[in-house]
This record gives sequence, structure tokens and C-alpha cells, in this order.
Amino acid sequence: MSDSPGEATTRLRVQCPDRPGVVSAVFDYLYRHGANILQADQHSTSGEHPRFFLRVEYDLVNGNVPAAEVATGFGDEVARRYDMEWSVSYSSDRPRIAILGTREPNCVLDLLWRARTGELTAEIVTVLSNREILRPLADRFDVPFECLPVTRETKVEQEKQMLERLQGRVDLVVLARYMQILTPTFLDEYPEKVINIHHSFLPAFAGADPYGQAEQRGVKIIGATAHYATEDLDAGPIIEQDVLRVTHRDKRPDLIRLGRELERVVLARAVRWHVEDRVLVDDNKTVVFQ
Amino acid sequence: MSDSPGEATTRLRVQCPDRPGVVSAVFDYLYRHGANILQADQHSTSGEHPRFFLRVEYDLVNGNVPAAEVATGFGDEVARRYDMEWSVSYSSDRPRIAILGTREPNCVLDLLWRARTGELTAEIVTVLSNREILRPLADRFDVPFECLPVTRETKVEQEKQMLERLQGRVDLVVLARYMQILTPTFLDEYPEKVINIHHSFLPAFAGADPYGQAEQRGVKIIGATAHYATEDLDAGPIIEQDVLRVTHRDKRPDLIRLGRELERVVLARAVRWHVEDRVLVDDNKTVVFQ
Amino acid sequence: MSDSPGEATTRLRVQCPDRPGVVSAVFDYLYRHGANILQADQHSTSGEHPRFFLRVEYDLVNGNVPAAEVATGFGDEVARRYDMEWSVSYSSDRPRIAILGTREPNCVLDLLWRARTGELTAEIVTVLSNREILRPLADRFDVPFECLPVTRETKVEQEKQMLERLQGRVDLVVLARYMQILTPTFLDEYPEKVINIHHSFLPAFAGADPYGQAEQRGVKIIGATAHYATEDLDAGPIIEQDVLRVTHRDKRPDLIRLGRELERVVLARAVRWHVEDRVLVDDNKTVVFQ
Amino acid sequence: MSDSPGEATTRLRVQCPDRPGVVSAVFDYLYRHGANILQADQHSTSGEHPRFFLRVEYDLVNGNVPAAEVATGFGDEVARRYDMEWSVSYSSDRPRIAILGTREPNCVLDLLWRARTGELTAEIVTVLSNREILRPLADRFDVPFECLPVTRETKVEQEKQMLERLQGRVDLVVLARYMQILTPTFLDEYPEKVINIHHSFLPAFAGADPYGQAEQRGVKIIGATAHYATEDLDAGPIIEQDVLRVTHRDKRPDLIRLGRELERVVLARAVRWHVEDRVLVDDNKTVVFQ
Repeated sequence: MSDSPGEATTRLRVQCPDRPGVVSAVFDYLYRHGANILQADQHSTSGEHPRFFLRVEYDLVNGNVPAAEVATGFGDEVARRYDMEWSVSYSSDRPRIAILGTREPNCVLDLLWRARTGELTAEIVTVLSNREILRPLADRFDVPFECLPVTRETKVEQEKQMLERLQGRVDLVVLARYMQILTPTFLDEYPEKVINIHHSFLPAFAGADPYGQAEQRGVKIIGATAHYATEDLDAGPIIEQDVLRVTHRDKRPDLIRLGRELERVVLARAVRWHVEDRVLVDDNKTVVFQ
Repeated sequence: MSDSPGEATTRLRVQCPDRPGVVSAVFDYLYRHGANILQADQHSTSGEHPRFFLRVEYDLVNGNVPAAEVATGFGDEVARRYDMEWSVSYSSDRPRIAILGTREPNCVLDLLWRARTGELTAEIVTVLSNREILRPLADRFDVPFECLPVTRETKVEQEKQMLERLQGRVDLVVLARYMQILTPTFLDEYPEKVINIHHSFLPAFAGADPYGQAEQRGVKIIGATAHYATEDLDAGPIIEQDVLRVTHRDKRPDLIRLGRELERVVLARAVRWHVEDRVLVDDNKTVVFQ
Repeated sequence: MSDSPGEATTRLRVQCPDRPGVVSAVFDYLYRHGANILQADQHSTSGEHPRFFLRVEYDLVNGNVPAAEVATGFGDEVARRYDMEWSVSYSSDRPRIAILGTREPNCVLDLLWRARTGELTAEIVTVLSNREILRPLADRFDVPFECLPVTRETKVEQEKQMLERLQGRVDLVVLARYMQILTPTFLDEYPEKVINIHHSFLPAFAGADPYGQAEQRGVKIIGATAHYATEDLDAGPIIEQDVLRVTHRDKRPDLIRLGRELERVVLARAVRWHVEDRVLVDDNKTVVFQ
Repeated sequence: MSDSPGEATTRLRVQCPDRPGVVSAVFDYLYRHGANILQADQHSTSGEHPRFFLRVEYDLVNGNVPAAEVATGFGDEVARRYDMEWSVSYSSDRPRIAILGTREPNCVLDLLWRARTGELTAEIVTVLSNREILRPLADRFDVPFECLPVTRETKVEQEKQMLERLQGRVDLVVLARYMQILTPTFLDEYPEKVINIHHSFLPAFAGADPYGQAEQRGVKIIGATAHYATEDLDAGPIIEQDVLRVTHRDKRPDLIRLGRELERVVLARAVRWHVEDRVLVDDNKTVVFQ
């Protein structure tokens, strides 16, 4: 939770066991504290233990009460009663992002550019890599770059180095075609805070060389998938996917070229939605309030 | 508003001037009357006179109070206070539809089939036409068919006949490639209750022979548009659109064939959403809560 | 190869080892025999043993020479020399199709309707099923229906019955959500002549209950795949695929409903392309000349 | 026509009145001169004066004869006889592009980046603008930038300046959201060599502020269109279009943001296809051999 909202709108995210009264309790609280609701989305799952998901974006009609105070009160008064996981952020927040990449520059450039133009309300604080290739690109955007080469022997140590570099400095890690598998140790530090782009329509073609696999199988459509990274490789909660038609003429290099468009667009959407607090994780799936 | 909900869920639709408290008032009322919210969508427009749109789907935890009674109470207690236009319907409702067609059978078959299989929760009570062509199709589904031929001279009279046939018997009129322009007199009887399918991506290629126009212009994508019919031809509030890629090889007959898929899918979605009370009209646009 | 083309256009399909001169040889032959080329598509694969694929559609400027004679001459004069697999068909041909279904009527209706309206230039000669459910639908289109119930014990016998029914009477078998796995014995009788529709974006969610699998995995896009059936279940050459966006709101029943649209459109395209001789099989892939 | 092909493949483009023998004549010539055909696409229009379009990509089996010589011979031996417009280029060619922009950097960056990474086989020789805004972007890629401010008084003079700058130095002019209308004088110098990106699905929302128009009309899909610029504003031959779904929530600023993705992707495809000689102009339409 950030603390200085200023003119910004507030985003309240909630998830809890679903039960009657929960919606009413939230909106009643917000109304009593002068919230003017700009956008609100909710979702209830079905099944034995239904869960409730909510995202509200509001500004405060009465500017006297600080937004953070309203948020704190919500925790005490409402969230506790309904056993809510909740968080508040402000549209003025600029979450700090670390990009991890290896060789492919497209997704990296895309994110750097969107952050630069303000389309992505975030600050890219560093580009880390196991190679030197992306350094000039990071330099061009005046973003600190660091190369931590990884071999089988140094993997554990290098990841530790990485964690140290990031410690307390980033809110989100984006794997922009990073060609190393992160260990559970790393992932545990950033639960639901590591977004990976996989260059296939998962669960098709998980693993290595998805474009080669796609050519081999003769599919007529290729895809890309942005998901939260978990210990299960390529099996974390999917945030966004998109696809593109291909034909028998498109060989692996064509698929790679065409897929690049998908990768960067899909990754950019996922990062944007995460940054705007639009993605709530429901076990191994996501609820995305676009 | 129907009156016998049984096991059905209730759908409450609201639109009113946007102001603080309106969301809270609705959900508070629903909570106090035992509503268990299954789905809720809201939207606020911006501008000088912002409007608020809401659709809530709920069932009643306490089965003692009839759903209709809860709805009536809502009118007295909440709707009046906030100057709401509102309506209630039940998932068990089967709105009565009249299909108007001329020659093209595809959209007509599609709707008849969806109603038959229960995918579309509606009853198609009649197929009216200015030609005999569609009679066998209607017969096959045991839906009453009537042919009211139209000439320049008989147009006014025939439309009067049509209105009489429909009077009090239908909740929605679907123009499934009906090749006559309805007069304002007719449309006034069914405000926001006449859905038309136009075989282009409006506002491109409004008017006659859109596929011919599309071939002429050499577009690379064709579309179809379902909208509420208004006095302004092809200019009513758009409910749904979809598109399809075409190439230089596709001549007018190909566009017609390809477009047929679009027309029926787009029309079916629009009718379904209307029937499920998911479409709210905001001046000349629609708010669609999918 | 059919024998009486009349006014029809001729379609020549060729595949052979790729080598210089092959294109020239084909077009030279056609020119010398008075062919006016309406459409021509070719494709060469790469790799060690490149193959050449060609589809030409033409009519004969000089109506004196029968089209079949021109075709025969092609075999003697050109095809032998270049080691070609080749075939000729005419736009007036109406290949005979057997539909195999079980419970789901949508794809069956769709094909029956397209054949009836002439959009699909084919004759549906029978609907076979292991259940009685689809009988009324076949009846409605005056297409012979036969039910051959299958149990573990009768499976082999029933498939034999089926083969006998189809023997010499059909050119294509369409599995329109047929819920039995065909044996290699059956498939060997109809190589590259059995088209199956799988209700997922293969290779994702092969096997049973793909919509359940899709819901479980939380994908944001669902798909359907039409492919030639081979002994490897859900692994035959893909002819066509298409997809549709879904959200966290769409549960298994919604996916089933939404997927129905995909299934029938994708299957219809694949069957149409097959019937128009647009699909050439290249090992485990297809070359589709749309 | 370039003159030094080296290892490159040759692309032959032809259009002429359609008549029997034309296909055969081309492929026969190519075969006799040792061409190994890699890709070939043809198209015949219908109507009273049918035209034939062809694009062949080949390499020469016998490296002894220079590719340019083969091309010259084609002109003498084949093209003249069939009244062909034709041209030859080589995959090693790097056409010279001038980008004209004003304020929007996205398309400009996109093209600069694709040229830099080699994905676009072209050389961007200059960025011209009526503003200074894009200078830093051009600088970053070491591409010469020049600002030629335009007022009503200076328009004619400045365009003359522009033409002088470009004279003999560029093969293609790309209007990457250039906010000035080019005069016929300019366009006449670059027939079918000026590509414009329009931020709507033409012919819908031609003219100014298409996103504003789209919001106003309440469309459910927005688009972008790349076309050859002609004197008729926004009415030149369409090369490529693509679209994106939007909802009632998307206001003009959202449409602008979402549309940016479309614009750059659509423009990039059109420029790529032009550069690879895949676009043939057929009166006011294009034949695109992808």
C-alpha cells in the first residue's frame, strides 16, 4: 500500500469467502467515507467454497479525509469481519519493475518504451541478464543494467546475487524471455509478483522451442501466454493469451517473427493489468478485471 | 417484469443519474432482503451529466419472501429516491420474439434452432415476412408463419397489419435480414425492442448491398453489426459487431457466403444478451454487461 | 476422378518431389490443351527432400476435347515423368459424405443445412450413430439414419457393419462429435478421408472433456480443431483451427456453449476445403490452398 | 530493378491482361533459364477486362548467368509479347525509406526498430517532420532528422523542399501519422510509393479524429488501415487492416492507447509487404501475395 495518493484515484482489491452481505458491507463503508465510485468489478466463484473477488476504483468526494486513512479504516471495520485479503493502491503509484532478459530484445524494448512514454505507470529500475546482449538497449533508456552470467556451477550463487540486488527495490519481476529457470527460493520471495511470457498458447507447447514444436505439429494458429511464474514450469496462473493465424508457408523463422508481435503485446497487457491491480489470483487461475 | 420466478435467479437492471450512494443503496437493499449476489456489473459514464448503469443477478437466500415482492419494494424504497429507470426479470422468463425476414434463411434458422435447443431462453412466436420463401423453414419448427406482401401502395396498411398481429404478443422483434424499412410508427411501438442485423461493419457500408460496397472498396476485413433499429437507418445503438479477414480473391459471392457466418453469430449474441437483460441503452450507445 | 465435367471447372491436384521444371511442365501441358487458368496455388517444402504441391483450377477454352481426356493425357505425359501423385476433380462433383455422430446435434445440423442450401457442394448420404438421439434431425432433412449401438463386446462387429454400410458409397466420413474411437481397420479404409472435429485448440487438451480441462487450466482463449483422423488419437494432420476469447466468468457450461460455435464453423470450413480439393496432406501436416 | 543480386533470391512481379498462355510463358522462360521456384502466387480478376497478377520468387540453379541478365531477357522475350507491366527485385535489396511524422512516436519507433534489427529489409534514410518532437527519437537511431514547419503560407514551399530532399534518394515514403495532407504534386512523384496509416477501419471514420468518432458512434470494434496515399484522402488502395474489440468502458483516450498497437502492427505489415514486393495495385484495390 502506498501512502500519498494526492489527486489520484484509489483502487481497493478484495478477496474473501463469498457470503451474503459482503458486497453491501464494502459499498456501504465506501459511501460513508465519501467515496465516489468510478469503476467496480466483482466475481464470485461457484463450488463448495465459493470465493468473492472485488476491485473498486474510486475518488474521495470530501478531500478532507486522507485516502490512506479511509483505507486503514476499511481494514479494521470491514476486512477483518469478512476474513478478507485486501490491498489498496493509488493510480499515482509507480510500481518498481525489474526486467530479466537474455537475448531477445523485443519485449524488453517494448516495456522500456511504454514506461518511458507513461503508457505503463511503472518505473523500470533495472534490467538484469545472464548475458551482455541487452546492455546497449538498457543504456539507451538510461536504465541500470547488470550482467550476472550463469553456469551450472554458479546458478545458485548468481540467483542469490540477483535476489540481493532486487531486495526491497522492486515490486514486480518481469521475465521478458529470460532463458533461465528460477528456483523456488527466488519465486518464494516474489509470490504472484513474477510474470513470465511464454511463446506459445499454453498448455500447448510448454517447454523448450515452442515455435519449433508448433511448426512440427502443423498448427494453423500460434499464440503467446503471460502467466505468473510458479515452481511448476509454464503452469502458473495465466493472465493473458493471444493468438495469430499462420499457414503451411510459415516455417520456424516466420513463426518466431510473427510470434514476437504476440509476445510483446500479450506481455505488455499482463504487466499493465498487474500494475493497475486488475489481476487477482484464484488458486491456479486469475480473475482479470479489465 | 414477469411474476413467477420459482427457482430462477432475479436480474435487476438500473440506470439513473450517477451520484454517491447509489451503489451502496442498491446493495444494501438487496442484502437486507436476503439476496445472494451471483453476478454484478456497473458502469458510470463521464461528462457533465454522468449516468450510472447496473445489472445485478441474484437469488434469494430466504425463500419465504417472493422475488416479485422484493422487486416491488425496491421500486418504492430505492428507485424512486435515486430517480432510477429500472426493471426486473427472471432467468426463467422466456421473452416472446417475432422474427421478421424476407429471403435469407440463415439467421432465421439459427434463431429457431437456438430457441428449440434451449440455448436461447426465448419463445419464437411467429415468423413474419413480405415473401413466402421462409414458410417451409418456419413450418419445420412448427412456428406460425405469415406472409404480408408489401408494395409501395400497401406498405402502410401491411405494417398496420403486422402491428396488430404482434400487439401484446411479443417482447422483442428481430429483423433477420428483413428487406423492408420499418416506419417510425412501428418503431415507436417497440422502443429498444427491435434488433436489426446489418451485414457490414457499421458505420462502414451503411445502406444497400454492403458486400458489393466492400468488394468495391477492396477492404481486407468484413463485418456484421447488430443494433437496435431506430428511425435513422443503420444508425441505432450498436449491440455487437464482429469481423472476418478476406483477401483479393474474395468476390461479392464469397463475401456473402463468409458474411453469413458473421451475421448469424453476431445476431445470436445480440439477441441472447438482450434476452438476458444484459444490454442497457445509453442514448445512442449501448452498455453491454456480458 | 469423376468423369463428366460438363460446364464445370477442373481441379488438378499434384504433389511430387520438388525439382526444376515441374511447374513449367504442368502449365505448359495445360496451355497446350486449352486450359484457361482460374486459380493456381503452389507450395514447396524445404529440407533434404523438398516436395512440391500444386492445385490448379481451370476451364477449357476449346470445348471440343473432353476434360477427362485432358486429365488422362496429363497422367501419361507429365505425371509419370515427375513421379507425381495427382488427381482431378470437377466443380460439378458432389462427393458423398457419411456423418457419424452421437449426441451433439450442432455440427450435424450445420452440415446438413449447408449441403441442403448448396453452400457445401456435397451429398450427405447417411447419418450413422451409436445412439438414437440424432434420428429426428436426420429425418427432418430426409437423410437416411441408422443406429448401431456400441458396447465393449459389439464394437468390432458394429464397426464392421458400418464399413459394410459405407462400402463404395461414400467419399468422406465426417466425425461430428462421434464419441467412439475408430479402429485402425476402419481408418485404413478411408486414408485422409475421415475428418474429425476436436473441441479444443490442439495439441492443448487432447483427450476427453477438453472444456473441463480448459476451465481447470484457466485459459483465456478456447479453440476447436478439425483434423484428419489417424490411429494416433487427436494427433492427425490439422486442417483448420479457430479460437474465441473467454474470461474467468466462463465456466464449463459456458465454454461448451461458446465452443459449439467454433466447432461447427471450423468443421464446416475443413469439410468445404476437403470437398473442394484444397487440402493436400504433407506427412503429418496439411497444405491448405484456400 | 537493382543490379547486384549475389546469393539473393529474385522476385519477379508481373501484371497484364489475362489470357491463355501467360502463366505457361512465364514459367517456361524461368525454367529454361535455370530458375528454381521457391514461391509463386497468381491471381486473375474477373469482369470484362480480366487482369493477371503474378509474383514469383526464385533462385538460379546455374549460377553462371547473372540474375539481371535473366531479368532483361524476360522483358524482351516474354513481357513485351503479353503487354506486361513487370519488375524484378532481389531479396538483398534494401529499399530506402523516408518516414514523415508529426507528433506520434509509436509508428516511427516501430519502423526504426524493425529496420535496425533487420526484420524489415530496408534502410530508413530520413525522418522528416513539420515539428521538432520526433528529433530525439531519430537521433537515438542515428537517422537524419529534418524539421520543415508548415503554415498555410509555407505549405507549398515546404513540400517543394521536401521533394528536393527526397529526390532520387528514396524508394518509399511512409506517412507515420503525418498530420499534413500531401498535395497531388507530391503524390504524383511517388505513385504507389506513399503508404499512409489511418487510425480507423476505413471506410468507417475517414477524416479527422477517428477515435473520437468511434467513441461517439459506440462501435464495439476499432481498427487501423494502411493504404497507398492518393489524392482522394483516406480513399487509396487498402493494403492491410486489423481490428480490436473495445467496450462501453473504453473512452477516447483508451481507444487512442489501444489503437496505437493496431496502427504500428498494421503499418509494419504493409511496409514489409511493400518492401518484399508482395503488393500489386489493381486499380483502386490491392492484390497482396503474403
